[in-house]
Amino acid sequence: MWQLYQFPLCPFSRKLRLLLGEKGVGYELVRESPWARRDEFLDMNPAGQVPVMVDAGRDILLIDSTAICEYFEETVEQASLISGTATSRAEIRRLVAWFDDNFFREVTGPLLYERMEKRVAHRAAPDARALREAMKAAITHLDYVDYLLDHRQWLAGATMTLADLAAAAQISITDYLGGIDWKGHEQTARWYRGLKSRPSFRPLLAERMELVSPPSHYDNPDF
Amino acid sequence: MWQLYQFPLCPFSRKLRLLLGEKGVGYELVRESPWARRDEFLDMNPAGQVPVMVDAGRDILLIDSTAICEYFEETVEQASLISGTATSRAEIRRLVAWFDDNFFREVTGPLLYERMEKRVAHRAAPDARALREAMKAAITHLDYVDYLLDHRQWLAGATMTLADLAAAAQISITDYLGGIDWKGHEQTARWYRGLKSRPSFRPLLAERMELVSPPSHYDNPDF
Repeated sequence: MWQLYQFPLCPFSRKLRLLLGEKGVGYELVRESPWARRDEFLDMNPAGQVPVMVDAGRDILLIDSTAICEYFEETVEQASLISGTATSRAEIRRLVAWFDDNFFREVTGPLLYERMEKRVAHRAAPDARALREAMKAAITHLDYVDYLLDHRQWLAGATMTLADLAAAAQISITDYLGGIDWKGHEQTARWYRGLKSRPSFRPLLAERMELVSPPSHYDNPDF
Repeated sequence: MWQLYQFPLCPFSRKLRLLLGEKGVGYELVRESPWARRDEFLDMNPAGQVPVMVDAGRDILLIDSTAICEYFEETVEQASLISGTATSRAEIRRLVAWFDDNFFREVTGPLLYERMEKRVAHRAAPDARALREAMKAAITHLDYVDYLLDHRQWLAGATMTLADLAAAAQISITDYLGGIDWKGHEQTARWYRGLKSRPSFRPLLAERMELVSPPSHYDNPDF
């Protein structure tokens, strides 16, 4: 049985869990707070980050959300999420990197630090300016998602791919943290509603992080 | 003919060029300074980052070093660099992410900003404290490379893989910027000398960035 080390608001673990859900891979959750830098966890992953997946019975240890997603894409045929020609696959991976790197660095990362880690780990108040900048960046990113959806049915083309899951993972954590103003992003909202109602997504929306509450529209699929 | 947009000290372009060299893929260099945020380049890649590869004749545009490396790994059989079982491939990708993300964030990124971008774009002096921290982090990373090479012939196992190229790319830029103290890292130095003498690596060592000079040992394969 796979064990997945993560915490409820980790966007990279969420991307992976959406992929595992679509592929029908079972796993058990293990709660890990990377900011606590627990020795036993650092021994397992010196990078100190989640997600990490372990299959103790088969002595398999998987680290880094990109490497883990590629692993399950290679080993589980059901629901191919990096699909199509080599050029289509490159476009899917470009967009995954866009959300994992750029969206996270400009939006989800700062919001998680200001609204979660500061409260949970340091009992400190968020910095209003950092919050404003992250929310401004979120609007620019949602404009880009709108633009993609003007030209394509899903973010990378005609079918749902890992790009949609990576984007929805970042957007859902940002939404949990009150960082998204849905006004003026009807295209993106329609696409996101579709993803929220999938069986792979619904259990994630029911989870809560202690001390940090989402806005009331957060888990409503018809927000 | 492929065109590769890059600048001489971009570690991600260097990782890709090492892969292209090993695979025997030809390309033409196009100089791009991402910090200048040129409009035509942003139209091509809204993320504003290099490397970007274009094959105008076949109307192919590839963005993001991870996506591009996977593309050539999928389309060019020669010299497989993400090889072996699914678990081995996951370990290769974990280490590529380690160097692309962690090494870059802690070492190459700060050094590039302080010693190159500040000088080239802003004519400003580097911050001594940021340099010291990056060089301290470089020692920790080289300790980790030593540790890996104590247990394995190459970073991810018995054969040379993209993990070695990603690591050598980050290390070579750090070395160019005077950020590496080779004392006490004989294991890593031996491995790096081997990579430096490969035909894929030698042309890169001859290139220079204007206004920024490397230390005298930089391009010596027997340093």
